Amino acid sequence: MTKNITPIEIKNMDERSRDEYFMGFALEEAHKAYALGEIPIGAILVQNNTIISRHHNRRELDNDATAHAEVLVIREACDVLKRWRLTGCTLYVTIEPCPMCAGAIINSRIDRVVYGASDYKGGAVESLFNVLSHPGLNHEPELASGILGDECSQIMKDFFKERRKTRRSTQEAEGSALEMR
Amino acid sequence: MTKNITPIEIKNMDERSRDEYFMGFALEEAHKAYALGEIPIGAILVQNNTIISRHHNRRELDNDATAHAEVLVIREACDVLKRWRLTGCTLYVTIEPCPMCAGAIINSRIDRVVYGASDYKGGAVESLFNVLSHPGLNHEPELASGILGDECSQIMKDFFKERRKTRRSTQEAEGSALEMR
Repeated sequence: MTKNITPIEIKNMDERSRDEYFMGFALEEAHKAYALGEIPIGAILVQNNTIISRHHNRRELDNDATAHAEVLVIREACDVLKRWRLTGCTLYVTIEPCPMCAGAIINSRIDRVVYGASDYKGGAVESLFNVLSHPGLNHEPELASGILGDECSQIMKDFFKERRKTRRSTQEAEGSALEMR
Repeated sequence: MTKNITPIEIKNMDERSRDEYFMGFALEEAHKAYALGEIPIGAILVQNNTIISRHHNRRELDNDATAHAEVLVIREACDVLKRWRLTGCTLYVTIEPCPMCAGAIINSRIDRVVYGASDYKGGAVESLFNVLSHPGLNHEPELASGILGDECSQIMKDFFKERRKTRRSTQEAEGSALEMR
């Protein structure tokens, strides 16, 4: 799908096509993270069919445990809009948010959250917790999931497969070095 | 209690006294927030009985939904220590962390968390969720709570009581203005 289309053209799409269109940008961010050796998760924040912030996970690059894609787009959007309430905004993220990011979504009052693939080991939307739909919390965003889910999931699988392979090679090399002593 | 004591003297305290000593600094931060009109929650991060970062809630000042005291101390500590893993550190915070902050604690692998008062409406440690003791997550910090709990709770009650009073006065003034038309 071409990406040079206007906010009005995007508005005229059906919701599923629009969600896939925007998730494509979050996936682009995930690919950038992959190339940098970061866990490949990307996110964008959209207001009035316009992207106002886009980021990928930067934990290793920034030495910052809070530098997940979602927190980075939220912080940048607050800065751009000069307000901490991100009402009127939709967050797109390739993987189900963790507790920190789901909490940041609640705290920023984002209207709608769209994610690609579930994270059964650490997700806080449907997997380990239900932070975005807990009746005790003072905000409940609209939710959609499974958008470009296979692509969002595949890049994570590829990343961890490659990392295991690299670690095994390193261990084998270290093993050989030990045998040589 | 005097605050001009050395890390060695602090180390020699019993755990309860040490926790109360450090919580005093988190409370100081909460008082600073109160004076600035921010929800009065403070936090500090301690490594080897030395405070490496201290902050209070700055959501309104910074227009940043993620600017809770805990996230700010974690980000600063990562920056100071040049690593995202805050192993060897203890976080002191006046109020039970919300989902975002509890998640940030897990993500940063903090060893121990001490908080003052529970937050029955939004806490993610014992109230709405058990983020810091969930068996599915890959980190479980040591926990202590109720340290200077009455003081930590009282400053919140005072803040919200005053805010309700101010709002009522404003509404009454607006009401009178309307009647005068």
